[in-house]
Formats: sequence, structure tokens, C-alpha cells
Amino acid sequence: MACIGSDEQQIRELVATWMAATKAGDVATVLSLMTDDVVFLMPGRPEMRKNEFAAQARAQATAAAPSFEGTSSIQEIQISGEWAFMWTRLRVVITPRDGAPIERAGPTLTILRKESGQWRLARDANMLSSVGK
Amino acid sequence: MACIGSDEQQIRELVATWMAATKAGDVATVLSLMTDDVVFLMPGRPEMRKNEFAAQARAQATAAAPSFEGTSSIQEIQISGEWAFMWTRLRVVITPRDGAPIERAGPTLTILRKESGQWRLARDANMLSSVGK
Repeated sequence: MACIGSDEQQIRELVATWMAATKAGDVATVLSLMTDDVVFLMPGRPEMRKNEFAAQARAQATAAAPSFEGTSSIQEIQISGEWAFMWTRLRVVITPRDGAPIERAGPTLTILRKESGQWRLARDANMLSSVGK
Repeated sequence: MACIGSDEQQIRELVATWMAATKAGDVATVLSLMTDDVVFLMPGRPEMRKNEFAAQARAQATAAAPSFEGTSSIQEIQISGEWAFMWTRLRVVITPRDGAPIERAGPTLTILRKESGQWRLARDANMLSSVGK
């Protein structure tokens, strides 16, 4: 297990860029941060691939979109060649234009792959659940 | 990414042994299949480490234990040196001695590590949720 500082730093920057682009509704940037064969795993529904993620994100990125605030606290990053994994504690607050904020929190476990010198999200397990409901 | 058949076969055998040992209430065998620094991630509660897993498993492995049936359908295994990841579709049915069966299903994303020639579970994201409730 090689632990190269610059790889870890690139992955931390990927997370920061992902959160900022999600907040800004910048779907193109978010899509550029994942591999074409990405798989999103979550409870209670089938896995989601890139096309479906893109369609959902574009549908949400409208003028009436809820506001998004998220904080990702990275607990571990391990790098092995062109693969890496990371787990985080994630907390998001989604506020509809005409509604009360909805807070969700939980861990994530993510596989990343380095393609042409760029780390991208490749497999993602999202274990967010409602807070205080 | 080296994909060595025997490594993948060992990981498939680990999953089969895990399921059989869980069904048999053989806690010692299940514990032997995970690294000492294992982390279990799931929705709605803090991460669980090996000591807590062992205490829970031992508390459940009593004469009054519910019966356990599980099937794990492996969707992908990728190996990179002494690390690997795998995702599965998992389905479990837990039947209390005096109650109706409880069925839970969902994906898992697991990081494995090879220690002294033996693959072990190292990080595990469990996204099971209730079925038909």
C-alpha cells in the first residue's frame, strides 16, 4: 500500500470540488469527477449508473432547486496503485424553496480510480439517513 | 489492476464461509474472516469495530437465537495488490423462535485485505433495508 501525499491531496480536492459543484448545481463538473462505469449503491433502491445520476441531477438543477449544504469529514484514504478507497462522515442539509430544511447524515464508502492522472469516483456506497425525524 | 483467478476464488470462498458460519452461529470463524482494524458502516448508527461486532454476535449466538438464511450475489470483485473491493446484492431472512420471518435486502460494498496469504474483510458498507414492510 503506497501512500503518496499528492494522490491523497488530489482525492481531498476531488471531494471539495464535488461538494462545491453540487451546491452550485454545476452538473457538468460533478459528472467529470466520476468514471463512466461508476456505480452508486444505497439502501432501498437498485444501484444507479452515470446516465441515471446525470438525468436526476439535471432535473434537480432548476431555478426552483432546493438549496444544498454539505460537509464531508474524511475518516480514511488508502491508495493502492491506480485504485483507492475512502470513507467519510457526510452530513447534508437540503432546503426546499418553500419548505423546512431536511437534514441527512451517515457514512459513505467510496472506491476511486485514477484515469489519465485524474482521480475519479468509481463505486460509492451512500448510507445517509434522516436526522431528528 | 491484476486480476488473479485464485485471489478471486479465495474471496468467493470467504463470502461462502462467512454466510455458512453466520447461519451456524460460529462466531469464532466469522471473526477469523475480518482484519483486526475492520470497520462496519451502515445507515442510522455509528460505525462498528471488531470488539463490538464480536460482543453482538456472541450475544445473539444463544439457544434462543433466531434462524438465519442469507444469499449473497457477488456483482463485482476487483483486486489491486493486497487490497480488493467487492460489491454484492445481499438478502437475509431472520426468523425469531416465536415470530414471523423478517426479510432484509440491499447492496454491500466491501474492502478486503490480504494478510499472510489470507483475504479478510477490512471495511464493509451494509445497505440492507426491510423488504415488503
